[in-house]
Amino acid sequence: MTPYTPPTQDQLLAIRVNAGIEELAQSEKFAHAESDLVEAIVEGVGQFAAGEFAPLNRIGDLEGAKLENGVVRLPDRFKEAYDAYVEQGWNAIASPEEFGGQGLPFILSCNVLENLGAANMAFNLLPMLSVGAIEALEHHGSKDQQSKYLPDLVSGKWSGTMNLTEPAAGSDVGALRSTAVPIEDGEHAGKYKITGQKIYITWGEHELAENIIHLVLARLPDAPEGSRGISLFLVPKYHVNDDGSLGNRNDLRCVSLEHKLGINASPTCVMSYGDNDECIGELVGQENRGLMAMFTMMNNARINVGNQGAHIAERATQQALYYAMDRVQSARAGSPDKTPVAIIEHPDVRRMILRMKALTEGVRALLYYCAGQVDRGTIGDPDAKNRAEILVPMVKAWGTDTGVEVTGIGIQIHGGMGFVEETGAAQHWRDSRIAPIYEGTNGIQAADLVTRKLGIEGGEAMVALFEEIARDAAEQPTLLALAKDCAHIARWMRDEASLDDRLAGSVPFCTMAAVAVAGWQLMKQDQAVAGGAAPALAESKPVSVRFFLDRIVPEAHGLKASAIAGADLLYILPSEKLAG
Amino acid sequence: MTPYTPPTQDQLLAIRVNAGIEELAQSEKFAHAESDLVEAIVEGVGQFAAGEFAPLNRIGDLEGAKLENGVVRLPDRFKEAYDAYVEQGWNAIASPEEFGGQGLPFILSCNVLENLGAANMAFNLLPMLSVGAIEALEHHGSKDQQSKYLPDLVSGKWSGTMNLTEPAAGSDVGALRSTAVPIEDGEHAGKYKITGQKIYITWGEHELAENIIHLVLARLPDAPEGSRGISLFLVPKYHVNDDGSLGNRNDLRCVSLEHKLGINASPTCVMSYGDNDECIGELVGQENRGLMAMFTMMNNARINVGNQGAHIAERATQQALYYAMDRVQSARAGSPDKTPVAIIEHPDVRRMILRMKALTEGVRALLYYCAGQVDRGTIGDPDAKNRAEILVPMVKAWGTDTGVEVTGIGIQIHGGMGFVEETGAAQHWRDSRIAPIYEGTNGIQAADLVTRKLGIEGGEAMVALFEEIARDAAEQPTLLALAKDCAHIARWMRDEASLDDRLAGSVPFCTMAAVAVAGWQLMKQDQAVAGGAAPALAESKPVSVRFFLDRIVPEAHGLKASAIAGADLLYILPSEKLAG
Repeated sequence: MTPYTPPTQDQLLAIRVNAGIEELAQSEKFAHAESDLVEAIVEGVGQFAAGEFAPLNRIGDLEGAKLENGVVRLPDRFKEAYDAYVEQGWNAIASPEEFGGQGLPFILSCNVLENLGAANMAFNLLPMLSVGAIEALEHHGSKDQQSKYLPDLVSGKWSGTMNLTEPAAGSDVGALRSTAVPIEDGEHAGKYKITGQKIYITWGEHELAENIIHLVLARLPDAPEGSRGISLFLVPKYHVNDDGSLGNRNDLRCVSLEHKLGINASPTCVMSYGDNDECIGELVGQENRGLMAMFTMMNNARINVGNQGAHIAERATQQALYYAMDRVQSARAGSPDKTPVAIIEHPDVRRMILRMKALTEGVRALLYYCAGQVDRGTIGDPDAKNRAEILVPMVKAWGTDTGVEVTGIGIQIHGGMGFVEETGAAQHWRDSRIAPIYEGTNGIQAADLVTRKLGIEGGEAMVALFEEIARDAAEQPTLLALAKDCAHIARWMRDEASLDDRLAGSVPFCTMAAVAVAGWQLMKQDQAVAGGAAPALAESKPVSVRFFLDRIVPEAHGLKASAIAGADLLYILPSEKLAG
Repeated sequence: MTPYTPPTQDQLLAIRVNAGIEELAQSEKFAHAESDLVEAIVEGVGQFAAGEFAPLNRIGDLEGAKLENGVVRLPDRFKEAYDAYVEQGWNAIASPEEFGGQGLPFILSCNVLENLGAANMAFNLLPMLSVGAIEALEHHGSKDQQSKYLPDLVSGKWSGTMNLTEPAAGSDVGALRSTAVPIEDGEHAGKYKITGQKIYITWGEHELAENIIHLVLARLPDAPEGSRGISLFLVPKYHVNDDGSLGNRNDLRCVSLEHKLGINASPTCVMSYGDNDECIGELVGQENRGLMAMFTMMNNARINVGNQGAHIAERATQQALYYAMDRVQSARAGSPDKTPVAIIEHPDVRRMILRMKALTEGVRALLYYCAGQVDRGTIGDPDAKNRAEILVPMVKAWGTDTGVEVTGIGIQIHGGMGFVEETGAAQHWRDSRIAPIYEGTNGIQAADLVTRKLGIEGGEAMVALFEEIARDAAEQPTLLALAKDCAHIARWMRDEASLDDRLAGSVPFCTMAAVAVAGWQLMKQDQAVAGGAAPALAESKPVSVRFFLDRIVPEAHGLKASAIAGADLLYILPSEKLAG
């Protein structure tokens, strides 16, 4: 596996042009996000990720996380790297200053995750999940909970998890059965006894942090059925004393680890709560409003998963590029000179490299555009908030689909070597495959886009996005055509299509929409670079943008027929006749 | 992992409609390929594959092939299953009758491989490689070699391998360095001493067959450089005495096995020949004509790899369908009835299942159409021979790309379970990923299509194919439009485009072309079913054909811009500036 070289210049370009950080820094909330600090962070975390996280990527895949007598073990150097991460303060970038964070924009939290994840996707899930737990407590925790738990979560001394899924409650979280019973008397009066089993708990157990704060969805006695009867509980691995010191171990344990296709260094735990009826948790927020609390942080969590598409694509592209420049095989076709050349000189290999590069930069542009809208939303811009809501499913679904595509091309460029695990190309592909699944499958993202998100302002918010793209793309015929058709499809879905028709076309439409937005944001990068914004990218950016607009945009346009084909054909055959 | 249910009805339909076996059976050569026999074979091998090969798929992946003191070990039951395979005569389907084969059409050999491979892709590579060795000897071996080696290869008692690749000679086979030195005197006079190391030798060493016949490419002393200086040698693992009994072991060994992404039960060997300068081989065919000999069988080998796309897609589709009908999660969106349903009832899951099904049937239709043209070519139809030549890269490239796509959708349908190895969905995806790489990468297939294959009859043969499709598709607007554009692109490539432009557009064009042919052949299936050809498929076939024509064909059409975009953009940046 080749080293990781942070794409600092392209990240800074996206942070400036697509996220618009300079404008944000004019707000009171983000006044300290000055240009120098932003550059220092992007450069610093890139170097840290390359130096500390990247070298552990292969060993993490090979040795993986192991469960031994209830303790989850990682290869030794993971502990050192995590300690360095905490010590250097990378965990605290976007968290509130009152709890020790730096209070910087979400944009920069995205950049920290992008770099750490490109270096080591499995390891980066530990910080990523903690960020989610911090957000949940920041928005829904009581003052006491915040002062007790947030400082050590923000520093990274402790980590956090999300516990939603149960065997019969996957995409349908509302079906969960874990229970929480109020404790009336004694030491824990006012708290709850938690009982149940949760699956797919990322970094649910490990020894890298001193404590783990589990956020667990469960039902109170007599809670209503379904999603309106779910409450959120804070369940620490070790009880925390009032002075902040750690007390006894809580009654929860990791029962087993999943044997997975990828991200092997990320322990995916089956967690059991209350085997001895002594698992104690605290209610976070209001009773029966747990799913609402989860939704608060879900948007950012989904963006962070979309970010995984960007980071695994970046890493795979670097690896493939390195190989294609190094591997010598065959002369150029038609060349009178019969000397073999590096394979990057062959047209189809070069096409593949440019495709990887254009797609990666496209996902990054979309990602930071969305992150910038999130930050704008937090300083009171309602249009930006709506825009972010619409962009989230695109970032998550198209970002992660693209991660799988790009890592797959990476294997292909390696030829036979790509299929041999030692090369490392295959690991990126295996790792990438989880991202279209978790944090809401990409099908669920697309459904969200054509239902809830299409419903914002009666559909006008979504149509306005595509019309804005069409206006800006007057001189880019492929993008103009795609944006117009996206607007058309959005109107058709809103005004004419049945719910089934919308859902049947949701995934192709989501891809079309994401490619339109990414192409638009790349176009803006191109204009900025032409204006001198990033001299280091002056030669390369126009090429990747051109590639994206000339080839990837028309390809997405080819999905139109599927987006508007409707659901009727899908239901002609009864399910049992689909076999054979 | 779910069991394998052979798609016998769809296979028979493709064999009749797309391969046209009934017409072939009117030829003298294939007169015995009567309808009853064909049905018996298709049903028989399907049952055999499901009963003997399929149950070993998961254990083969888990335990894999292991090298112990020079001996390659498979899980025990592989030996039993292989013995049963040989005993039942499945290895001998399409081989010449004079060597114990059944002399049946290649079409039926495809069907044997399709079923065995759907059951167990890694295991099926053993028969698949033997078929290639048999063909090579059938066409290029001396009478003595044929009578000495073919009967036991045809029965399957012995297996065969192909030894092309060396570390510095991958796609560029002409760069290989293994040597063969004529032996002047003694016991082996007239034979050759072989020396060299070969990599990626599929089933290069194992104990399932009694002997292994390696076909090895090497250079004679003073042979010309490059591909015109390569000869083909037969190098047995055990020397064969004149009475057919096995003699001493030859000086060759498996040095190591690759640690691969998938097909773990297929030992991928590094082979070393002549460590003690005592590796003896026989020349097959003429000196320095080894690559020509290899090319003879390469077309069929490439079809067989394309077939792997069909079989892994079939298996993944069955598994996903089973899961989607079994897994209950969430009520139908918008339904007043809040009862959770099997996920196949949700529009997007149903879309995914139908996409898997339509793609799988499309690859199968294309595969058998191509196989039928191969068989026609062998009974003296020059147009069919040309047609087959043109179809081969489409079958190989699009077939295997589709295998990866369909197995990926299979994972997605399983949600989180898809990422857990025990489920089995992930294995199909991992296994599928080799097929776009070996037997000539898909980039090389596409290059072959737009250079050598486009050159057949000055391009008229290819244009005629698309014009034929366009004529037949007068009432299928999407297919008509795609076929017309394929003809247009073929003409543009022939008449106007530079070699670089053609190569730059080769992969997207290859996909467009393959989808056009597959759509056309599915349309023919649909018409045949409407005419009563396959009552069991009367309800389902129109749905999958409609899905293919309405959704997959327009998507392929979206590749047009990439196919004709040319190479200029690819070379604006010098290679070293592609990074960052």
